[in-house]
Amino acid sequence: MRVTLFTEYSFKVLLYLAGRDAALVTVEEVARECHMSKNHLVKVIQNLVHSDFVNSVRGKHGGIRLARAPELINLGDVARQTGMNLDEVDCFDTSGHDCPFVNDCKLKHVIRNARRSYMAIMDGYTLDAIL
Amino acid sequence: MRVTLFTEYSFKVLLYLAGRDAALVTVEEVARECHMSKNHLVKVIQNLVHSDFVNSVRGKHGGIRLARAPELINLGDVARQTGMNLDEVDCFDTSGHDCPFVNDCKLKHVIRNARRSYMAIMDGYTLDAIL
Repeated sequence: MRVTLFTEYSFKVLLYLAGRDAALVTVEEVARECHMSKNHLVKVIQNLVHSDFVNSVRGKHGGIRLARAPELINLGDVARQTGMNLDEVDCFDTSGHDCPFVNDCKLKHVIRNARRSYMAIMDGYTLDAIL
Repeated sequence: MRVTLFTEYSFKVLLYLAGRDAALVTVEEVARECHMSKNHLVKVIQNLVHSDFVNSVRGKHGGIRLARAPELINLGDVARQTGMNLDEVDCFDTSGHDCPFVNDCKLKHVIRNARRSYMAIMDGYTLDAIL
């Protein structure tokens, strides 16, 4: 049960931008200050822009900034939009079709409930609460 | 946020043994019926024996069986004993010491709360509930 690096980087970018208020910030600045590789960061930012958490302004004096106030950015939404799909429980093992319990696996239901409970906590916070 | 393969295999072994009641079962049988490699399985079983979930009986007619009734095997305990350490939130990225937020990271507290909530659900079930 680990938060993925992609989700982690996304949270870091959002925290950094929140700390810079409405200022436009270059990707280079975020990469430098948050100690991330620019390659990694570009994909993270593309996804944050696509998910409407971040605005991107092109041009010489362009950059990125939060698209909404921190109190309108829900942590559960960020987790989901960055790949933490916690509602679905696949058979963990890719060879799950061989599992003798697959047809009536009650463990899945327990894990699904546990994950929902996890997300309910995340859903209870917005970005401003962790600044 | 994924259950590890080690935890998954552990649950499968416990479910299989619970289905065989108190019978002694060979490792070969579990490997065959649960479609696991014997190499993997040996480590999983060693850990289950060490954690007192499973008894191992040596000898020609030996084998393994549950060490306790299914209603005394808590799913949260199994998760913890098989490596799901959910109380601790390390910086996800191993280069976390470079993180500008590391000294006062409130995201950690949220994630710790979310993980505790996850485990509280697992702690609410025993093996008999998922048979």
